[in-house]
Parts: sequence; C-alpha cells; structure tokens
Amino acid sequence: MRSIFVTGSNRGLGLGLIKHLVQSSKPPEYIFATCRNPDKALELKEIAQKSGGVHIIKLDLTDIDSYKNVVKVVEEKLAGRGLNVLVNNAGISSKFARLNYVKEKQLTEAFMTNSVAPILLAKELLPLLKKAASNATDKKSMSVERAAIINMTSILGSITENDQGGFYPYRCSKAALNAATKSMSIDLKDDGILVVCLHPGWVRTDLGGKNAPIDVDTSIQGILSTLDTLTEAQTGCFLQYDGKMLPCSFFLDLVFRYLKAIRSCANSKNYIYIYISIFVRM
Amino acid sequence: MRSIFVTGSNRGLGLGLIKHLVQSSKPPEYIFATCRNPDKALELKEIAQKSGGVHIIKLDLTDIDSYKNVVKVVEEKLAGRGLNVLVNNAGISSKFARLNYVKEKQLTEAFMTNSVAPILLAKELLPLLKKAASNATDKKSMSVERAAIINMTSILGSITENDQGGFYPYRCSKAALNAATKSMSIDLKDDGILVVCLHPGWVRTDLGGKNAPIDVDTSIQGILSTLDTLTEAQTGCFLQYDGKMLPCSFFLDLVFRYLKAIRSCANSKNYIYIYISIFVRM
Repeated sequence: MRSIFVTGSNRGLGLGLIKHLVQSSKPPEYIFATCRNPDKALELKEIAQKSGGVHIIKLDLTDIDSYKNVVKVVEEKLAGRGLNVLVNNAGISSKFARLNYVKEKQLTEAFMTNSVAPILLAKELLPLLKKAASNATDKKSMSVERAAIINMTSILGSITENDQGGFYPYRCSKAALNAATKSMSIDLKDDGILVVCLHPGWVRTDLGGKNAPIDVDTSIQGILSTLDTLTEAQTGCFLQYDGKMLPCSFFLDLVFRYLKAIRSCANSKNYIYIYISIFVRM
Repeated sequence: MRSIFVTGSNRGLGLGLIKHLVQSSKPPEYIFATCRNPDKALELKEIAQKSGGVHIIKLDLTDIDSYKNVVKVVEEKLAGRGLNVLVNNAGISSKFARLNYVKEKQLTEAFMTNSVAPILLAKELLPLLKKAASNATDKKSMSVERAAIINMTSILGSITENDQGGFYPYRCSKAALNAATKSMSIDLKDDGILVVCLHPGWVRTDLGGKNAPIDVDTSIQGILSTLDTLTEAQTGCFLQYDGKMLPCSFFLDLVFRYLKAIRSCANSKNYIYIYISIFVRM
C-alpha cells in the first residue's frame, strides 16, 4: 500500500503498527498517524523525525466536527492521490463490571469512541478511499493495495463467544462496530473498498493489561501478514490477527469440516439433505 | 406473570402488548405502561381507565436520572412484591441511509434509546426483578412467571443476516442490545432471571411502515405465546415473535439438523469426528 491512516498511534497497537510499517521492506509512502495529543507522543515523534513518511496529525475522535479539517490535511499531503487504508484502531475500555455496576458515562463514551467515531471517520475519508480504489491498476480485485477499511475490534464484541458476561461498554460498542463493518462491506463493495474487522488478540498494552498472553510485536506482525492476504473473499468478515476467521465465518468453517467428515458416508440421501440444509440457510 | 413493565406503550407494539395483556384470560395484576408523554397517549389512557391494573408512568428514556423515581413509583405500587417482567420495547429508527449519508445525531440518539437506556433501566429495576425471582415458588427453573428481561430487538441487528447494508444507527444499536442481552443472561443466571432478545417481525407500525407483512395483533399474539414457553434453555438467545430461533442459536439449530441427518450414517468414525468438532468449538 502507498498510504495508510491510523488512529490512536501514540501507544499500544497503534504505535506498534506505525513502527512496523516504517521498518517494513516496502514502507508506505504516506503514513498518517493520528493521536489526541501529539505533544505528548514522544515515541511517535521520534519515529516521525527519523522517517519522512510519517505525518502526525492531532485528532480527538470525540470531536466529530474536526474530521473535515483532518481530511483536508490528508488530501493536501496526498496531492491528488487517494488513500489506500484506514485503520480505525483507537478504542477505549472501562474496567470489567457486571450489570449492577455499569455506568451511563462509560456506555456513552465507549459508543462514541469505539462505534460512532470509526463510522463517521470512514464516511469523511470515503472520497479519498474511493479515489484510491478507482485509480488502482487492478480494478477487479480487492486488497489493501487498492483500498480498505480495517476496523480494530475485539473477540469481546462477539456475541457467540461471550461466556463471561459483564463488560457492557466494551462488548456492546465493539458488537456495534462489527455490525457497522458488515454494512460498510456491503455499501462499499461496488466501489472496490474492502472492509474487515480485526481482533488483534489479547495483547500486553495499557488496554489489554500485563497478563495478556501476546506482545505488541507478535500481534502486529500477524496483522500485517494477514492484511497482505486479504481479498474480496474476506470483505465483511471478522478475522483474528493471525488470519483465523472468527464467528462471522464460523459457519463456513463448520460446513467445511462437516462436508469433509461426511464425504465418505454411504448414505447419499443424508448427503443431499445436509447440502440442502446448508444452502437453504445460506 | 403477576407484574410487567413495558416501555414505549403509547403506540405500535408497546400499545398492542398492553391491549393484549389486558384482554388475556389471566391478565397481570400490575401492568406498568411507560411513555414519554402520557397526556397525548389517548388510546393508552382509555385502556387504563377501563382496567384497574394498568398504571401509566411518564418516562423519557433519554433522561437516565429520572429512572430512580420511576422505579420508586413501581416499588410503591408493588408494595413489597417483586417485578416479574421488564419489556425493553421502546426504540427509534431513522430512514435507511448508506455510509455517505449517516449522521452523528442519528447514531448517538439510536445508541442512547436502543442500547444505553435498556441496559440502565434493567440495572435500576434489578432489585425488583431479583425480588420476584427469589420470591417465586419454583426457584429452580426460569420463566416469565418468575422473572425475565425481554429486549425487543430486530433482525436488522443481526450481523449474520445483514445482506443489504446501510441502516447504521438502527443496526449498530440493536447489535449492541443483542450483545448486552447475552451479558445480562450470564450476569443474571444465578439470580434466576431469564433474559432474551425478541425480534417482533416486520410489523405495520410507525417504525415498520405500511408495507410490513404482519400486523401488530399477529406479532403480539406470537410474542405472548412465545413468552409463555421460555425456559432457561432460551436465556441469552435471540428469538423471533413466533418462537423461531435467530442467529445466536443458529449454530445449535444446524447441529440439531445435522445430527438428525447423519444418525443413520454407517461410518461411526465420522460420527465421532463430527461430535468432537462440535464440542471442541462450543
């Protein structure tokens, strides 16, 4: 990809992503790294000083009215070119709480940062993403080389996988982002813009905590490899950092397993029944 | 059930529910019917005048601070008894719009009314619901006779079933409510409180429009029959008005079909493989 826009780039996964992009064998020409307070983003500033491609942009995602100006800055830098990738990475979480401890402020803030902001930022950057998609040499297939929106979500946003309860602000706002991802993937299919949600794994960041099993580098290496493999087959899907499909495609995974398992089954009537039961529901 | 609390009772499905409850062979002793503006709820007022069991309560769901007073009123009326059922029915929607037309206000308003309000109302009513659950004669099973939270959601909130895109405020806020339902069902299981989300069907109401295929009476008759059949097997699930399971239990539905289909399969190795593949993933 030639250009990428990453929110929440001052720490955690966002900062890790910028680092790895800069160090990659073929770094993007334009890396737009946004954060609420660039003055305090010392590590990010250091990276930007060493690399001409990193442009730090001040962006408070709760200030929706400021998005237009941010897009203007990006547009000017790109000088007529489109934007290949938007990574809606910034997100907030509050401590685990069951129903009797959930608070209004935690809910509304989580919905604003984790659901409303990614949707409206995608809307504002849409003309630039469309430009990249229509300027691509290969106009038939979808990829991050052409145009893509990557919504960083979490397994905690999966309703199917929820067996612990609680966590209302985070779970609900991420489930909402997953729903938005599916709608975006349909709305933007004809424009050639790929849209997926990505679960980065449980990572040792401020948000993930010290007990998380994987580090930022492992997650980001996986994410970058996964991004490279994305095609139209994955648009609208929910993937893990290592490329593993999560519940949105869980059904297809099961179908695959079960067709494989019954392939040698002698009873052809059952075979037909199962095929029909799958395709009727699909 | 002896007592029920229904939001958005002045029109559409809420009003239909109150009507059918009053006319049922064994109407609840206490029907708390809330709406934003009782003065304008003429039809509801007429029902309340004819039936002593209907208590109209003014409730603007966006005014979270007012919930405590509403709960006080309910508590006083119940005079030491618990509340059996909360129906989070009130909901808002905006016109269909694709990504480039989605607006901040529509998103935040939808999240407030369709997601934040049902969660926080459930939280406030929790002591009364717990009281009903612990006062029940049968303390082992779950039912609407004991204690239940019914979140009225929509098939539009299902990520799996979304093949049309758009509708961000409605889809995302209902997906969030579905996620909240799952957490509530886990958080409240030990208290004996059943929690489900219900899709009322596409109904001819102000929200559903004139072209909807089913009328309020059909939907409400289905919902009331379905409520009567609910047990702990359905807690956390997503059901349609007529009792049909929707995607949350889609997997179980498929498992059932496929175990049925392969029951006579001669190859026992496959049978075992399939069983393992299911239970490992569950």
